[in-house]
Amino acid sequence: MHPVAILGIGQTKIDEHWQRSLRDLAGEAALAALHDAGRESAAGLFVGNMLSGMIDNQNNLAALIADWTGLGSTEAVKVEAACASGAAAFRAGLMAVASGELASALVVGVEKMTERSPHEVTAALATAADADYEVEAGISFVGLNALVMRRYMHEYGWQHADFAPFSINAHANAMYNPFARLHQRITVEQFEKSAMIATPINLLDASPIGDGAAAALLVPAGTLSRVPRITVSGSASATDTLAIHDRPDALLLTAAYKSAQAAYKMAGVRPEDIDVFELHDAFSIMSALSLEACGFAERGQGPRLGLDNEINPQGRVPICTRGGLKARGHPVGATGMYQIVEVVQQLRGECSKTQVDGARIGMAQNIGGSGATILTHILKRE
Amino acid sequence: MHPVAILGIGQTKIDEHWQRSLRDLAGEAALAALHDAGRESAAGLFVGNMLSGMIDNQNNLAALIADWTGLGSTEAVKVEAACASGAAAFRAGLMAVASGELASALVVGVEKMTERSPHEVTAALATAADADYEVEAGISFVGLNALVMRRYMHEYGWQHADFAPFSINAHANAMYNPFARLHQRITVEQFEKSAMIATPINLLDASPIGDGAAAALLVPAGTLSRVPRITVSGSASATDTLAIHDRPDALLLTAAYKSAQAAYKMAGVRPEDIDVFELHDAFSIMSALSLEACGFAERGQGPRLGLDNEINPQGRVPICTRGGLKARGHPVGATGMYQIVEVVQQLRGECSKTQVDGARIGMAQNIGGSGATILTHILKRE
Repeated sequence: MHPVAILGIGQTKIDEHWQRSLRDLAGEAALAALHDAGRESAAGLFVGNMLSGMIDNQNNLAALIADWTGLGSTEAVKVEAACASGAAAFRAGLMAVASGELASALVVGVEKMTERSPHEVTAALATAADADYEVEAGISFVGLNALVMRRYMHEYGWQHADFAPFSINAHANAMYNPFARLHQRITVEQFEKSAMIATPINLLDASPIGDGAAAALLVPAGTLSRVPRITVSGSASATDTLAIHDRPDALLLTAAYKSAQAAYKMAGVRPEDIDVFELHDAFSIMSALSLEACGFAERGQGPRLGLDNEINPQGRVPICTRGGLKARGHPVGATGMYQIVEVVQQLRGECSKTQVDGARIGMAQNIGGSGATILTHILKRE
Repeated sequence: MHPVAILGIGQTKIDEHWQRSLRDLAGEAALAALHDAGRESAAGLFVGNMLSGMIDNQNNLAALIADWTGLGSTEAVKVEAACASGAAAFRAGLMAVASGELASALVVGVEKMTERSPHEVTAALATAADADYEVEAGISFVGLNALVMRRYMHEYGWQHADFAPFSINAHANAMYNPFARLHQRITVEQFEKSAMIATPINLLDASPIGDGAAAALLVPAGTLSRVPRITVSGSASATDTLAIHDRPDALLLTAAYKSAQAAYKMAGVRPEDIDVFELHDAFSIMSALSLEACGFAERGQGPRLGLDNEINPQGRVPICTRGGLKARGHPVGATGMYQIVEVVQQLRGECSKTQVDGARIGMAQNIGGSGATILTHILKRE
């Protein structure tokens, strides 16, 4: 593969954008990324989105966004891998540029979810799980994660409050991210007392949905004079069984382990070289499992990093530095692109009070389903 | 790009497969393609599908199919571009192999549509059009095509019966394709008398939906000893406005023209070099427009090729040699991969009574929406 760089980034605030359409949100992020890159168009458009068909009655979304943003007759395609759709679109754009086939790729993650009822959104999100063997049995997506969290607490002896630092860190960091959905610090007491959703997952274990879009422009690194140069030095994707009950070990994110190992190898780095890690904290349990699968903690010891103050921007393993899914928000198909944009912001030193000092290597990991599709990207400032 | 070859193909019969699941159909085609290639696995899986979320309550489909077919933790992603999803997945897999990132790519187009009511399927198919500015006004997808056909007939003075050869040829060719949905010859009289759907489009102008899957295994051409070697020598994708009313000329498939020209250039061929052309005859009018946009007929003269007997397997421009969308069937997200599989069959000389004598260069063109996303692929026997 030819080396590829991220020349521009853009994003919208995540919110309940009832007055704005899907194309409008995607267009704002896409045009912001082009503007940031100093470009007027792109050779190809790659859209990450999970639910536009079910929620917005709109498929063929990539052609629509190419049309709306004035990209003309450019090649355009939508990529779907449930909540990992954003990173999957990024990887598709990356390969198109790395192959030499496209001179540039604009990648946009977009989702608009808040106009439907919670019941409809819950049903739509459940399509990330196995329709025939999980959802048919009556379980929701949060229910599946609750079973995993309960098993994890039983297996390793953690209390619910031990997960509080993940959510507290995310909310604290989001205070300094104007694009975040939630701007509200939380305490351990609030974390423990919030409304129960599916035992043991309560409201403050769970990330909020939202409407939003985030984008990046990929170009061959060789042609680039912009300083600092942010390159994609590691990229990998792996899958696991769709249904959790088919896994030998329900507490191991095998696809996170495999995609992280492949990305480390490609980038020539080890976990201790990662300065900032935007992980997929859809639920607090997922933060623990991701940290473990990616080599930042021993099996069963993920919560220890939070309790030891290692996950904040001054810690050894800074995560969710812009609020994570928990507080920046989780517009599902857009999330992976928010993570990429946020890692770029860290490597550029644009993160004000949550800036990781001297961040040079950042990692983003995006998860689709209950760990079924996991993509890991490593970016470097050069 | 490194040169890429198609090493194996597989497909299921298109039918109302009420007793079979989405994963089962995809698995049959995927494993058939691997078997045909003499391989046991693939480095990546690319799935083309439009409606699994809306119709089958299943997203994250690529991870599911990787799991079901025993591909292990391989990278897997779904690509959506409405009815062009199949070819869009093929192009994504092509770029992954051409970039050198993946040693092989298994591409599967799959759709399962027939268990829902016609009303639900019609609503789902309408998501290929512009939800806010076309569908919101109350028009269906066939309605949009009917407006185009009526305008075309008015503009160029054709009668409805002049389109009969497109459907008659498709049905005649499907008689020799065991995977086709319809095995029934039709006459001009039947064509003229069939039930009206949306004037002037009647039942025999329109392709039937269906359940089915088709697959191909892509590998670097350099490593290949199989004879004949089928290479992908041209690949291009282009978009147009999503809504037809935004186009300066509603009768010109600009994206077909652009993607065909780019594919011709890449392959170093001209229209007259194409021995077989699997085009996207979702409605008979689309056959005329595609032939014109790709340089096989002058503007407004597409029907002439049918009336002059030029489109059958012995003609100058053989199209829909395995039945086309009209008679092989149109399981929307799978169709693009059926076209690829059928061109490979022609180049291998496996098409019995509809074999195009000495076919060496074949073209497949897949359309998403009312011409909004169009991909053109040119394959060569070497």
